[in-house]
Amino acid sequence: MQPPQTDIARALPQIAADILARVRRQGPRVHCITNSVAQELTANVLLAVNGLPSMTIAAAEIADFVDRADALLVNLGTLDNERRTAIGLALDRAGAKNRPWVLDPVLIDLSAPRTAFARTLAARNPTAIRLNAREFAALAQAEPEATALARFASERHCAIGLTGETDLVVDAVRRFGIANGHALMARITAMGCAASALVAACLAVEKDAFLASASALLIFGVAGEIAGEDAHGPGTFAAAFLDALYELDAGEIADRAEVK
Amino acid sequence: MQPPQTDIARALPQIAADILARVRRQGPRVHCITNSVAQELTANVLLAVNGLPSMTIAAAEIADFVDRADALLVNLGTLDNERRTAIGLALDRAGAKNRPWVLDPVLIDLSAPRTAFARTLAARNPTAIRLNAREFAALAQAEPEATALARFASERHCAIGLTGETDLVVDAVRRFGIANGHALMARITAMGCAASALVAACLAVEKDAFLASASALLIFGVAGEIAGEDAHGPGTFAAAFLDALYELDAGEIADRAEVK
Amino acid sequence: MQPPQTDIARALPQIAADILARVRRQGPRVHCITNSVAQELTANVLLAVNGLPSMTIAAAEIADFVDRADALLVNLGTLDNERRTAIGLALDRAGAKNRPWVLDPVLIDLSAPRTAFARTLAARNPTAIRLNAREFAALAQAEPEATALARFASERHCAIGLTGETDLVVDAVRRFGIANGHALMARITAMGCAASALVAACLAVEKDAFLASASALLIFGVAGEIAGEDAHGPGTFAAAFLDALYELDAGEIADRAEVK
Repeated sequence: MQPPQTDIARALPQIAADILARVRRQGPRVHCITNSVAQELTANVLLAVNGLPSMTIAAAEIADFVDRADALLVNLGTLDNERRTAIGLALDRAGAKNRPWVLDPVLIDLSAPRTAFARTLAARNPTAIRLNAREFAALAQAEPEATALARFASERHCAIGLTGETDLVVDAVRRFGIANGHALMARITAMGCAASALVAACLAVEKDAFLASASALLIFGVAGEIAGEDAHGPGTFAAAFLDALYELDAGEIADRAEVK
Repeated sequence: MQPPQTDIARALPQIAADILARVRRQGPRVHCITNSVAQELTANVLLAVNGLPSMTIAAAEIADFVDRADALLVNLGTLDNERRTAIGLALDRAGAKNRPWVLDPVLIDLSAPRTAFARTLAARNPTAIRLNAREFAALAQAEPEATALARFASERHCAIGLTGETDLVVDAVRRFGIANGHALMARITAMGCAASALVAACLAVEKDAFLASASALLIFGVAGEIAGEDAHGPGTFAAAFLDALYELDAGEIADRAEVK
Repeated sequence: MQPPQTDIARALPQIAADILARVRRQGPRVHCITNSVAQELTANVLLAVNGLPSMTIAAAEIADFVDRADALLVNLGTLDNERRTAIGLALDRAGAKNRPWVLDPVLIDLSAPRTAFARTLAARNPTAIRLNAREFAALAQAEPEATALARFASERHCAIGLTGETDLVVDAVRRFGIANGHALMARITAMGCAASALVAACLAVEKDAFLASASALLIFGVAGEIAGEDAHGPGTFAAAFLDALYELDAGEIADRAEVK
């Protein structure tokens, strides 16, 4: 394991601000195969940064939508049959078109068939994976610490964003810890799912999956902190979060970033 | 193409206020076959004007729900198999019972099978169609300007509401431009879908599809303007929009209406 | 019919505060098979009290999720085929594992097949049923008054929470009327569905289904009253409601409870 790259860590706020500016300018299409609980918040997070979400899972349409998308999100939160079929078709097309894609293996620790399916997806070269510690443990059959993450990232040629109190972003050779965020983020549904969508939007404008993932999670965490200061509870937090993300500027990212 | 009917345009705010009052008093049931992303906001928009939404797509139930509904919304946003089947069954019943219905051909410009399906639906006599310029171009294979809209409306015996910076409402012989609204309306998901649901609610209480469509879009745009003044970004906008729609009165509609 | 138990009615606010404290401390998992319109609000209501929602309806997974859940919610709001299949599988497992479960027979008064299906579910020993007057009338083929409710509860060995202007909670021998709540609760979608999820969360920590149901509806109504004072309309109400539920304390419950 290499030591943390202090210089890149120091540069991340500026990199994130630049990637966010490109997302806002380019307005990437992100096709989201995501769980039905998370769809509205996910769409609104993408729209808040000028992304263009689409969410169909219909077999007859999915290839067309992936063709026109700049990135793809595959989230396993409510894995009904049509969604499962859609994922296969979407990944076939994403592979053919060389589209970046994010795997979000939601709650795979609770269901053996879902874990097995997630492993087959992890073997299909996701550009990035966003998950929590329990989900990583189930996916990789390893403790969710830095060495195991780096090994898994190396084997899969992907970036990994492991979110928690401190987010850990790794690829085969690099690692950031991001200590931004707010406790209320765990008190509204689909925040992790929406973070994965923002990773996908960043991948649409930035080829370095490690920097795109780290930028997305930094942006997400800083917006969460700002929202936490404005909110009176989880209900007002959700609205304040979208407002903060919409307004977020380079100065706020630089002032608040806690990257190491 | 006839010239804009200046007198009716001047009368629209009062007509819209009257139709809104009837919706609030009668509380029409609107059955919505709509995409999974838009369901919550759509239901809340209907409830804000005292409408009664229902949203099942189950083949065994859909006829019962359409029977008891005063209007039907058919939105193609996430066109999975069960939804597609439900649409056919619902239109059979709506035809038999002479229920007004609205077609919202979401994102048909992105998928050839969806465009083809939308054309078969447009041939089944929707009472009104609500869509954007790209969707009209795909549906009608024509440029989205006034003459083509009037021709399409005439052929289909329907009203068309084409939303954008200025909304254009046409039928075979009449035309309004409505310049209300707010930029944040494009930054939260499902606003167009919810506008279509409001068109359906207005059709439930007003037989003139042109006036019902124009009233719904005027009401929607004015509520959006008011919300835009109260909101700090897209998150607070969504809540402010429902509040504004709930409170909207004839005076605000008259003061703010920009109809020509 | 026994007379109302005045002493227990007087004790309910303290009982409800105690049950809420246990929910917050234990963080029960609640698996929700619920309609697609209600999923986000339902998840957020559970998270606001530190519950852990899951919502898959996939046949391959549902047994795993019910195994790991502390309670199950079965809501019939959008009863598509996969949801219907999931309900059967989930109840088989809930029965085998002796998990408490709540039936919410949404809008069964609008569809004969849905009524018939709800009756087969009511025969499978729900721990509690949460519904409105029209739904009770359809389910029990009886007028929704206290005697009929008690008889139905007695036959089904369950608690019943009938919500309306005054909520009525009954089991075979006990009865409470709860007069809390706010008019705006009827103006946003899925409030009843979310109340049923809170009943499930309370059943996860309290074996007395009557007290768990009454506590959930009292907590819900008091949070609604507080939110109604802060809100400007239905949009801000939804956020204020989650905030109020998140912050709710024993003193507010005691001060505001209107139980008889």
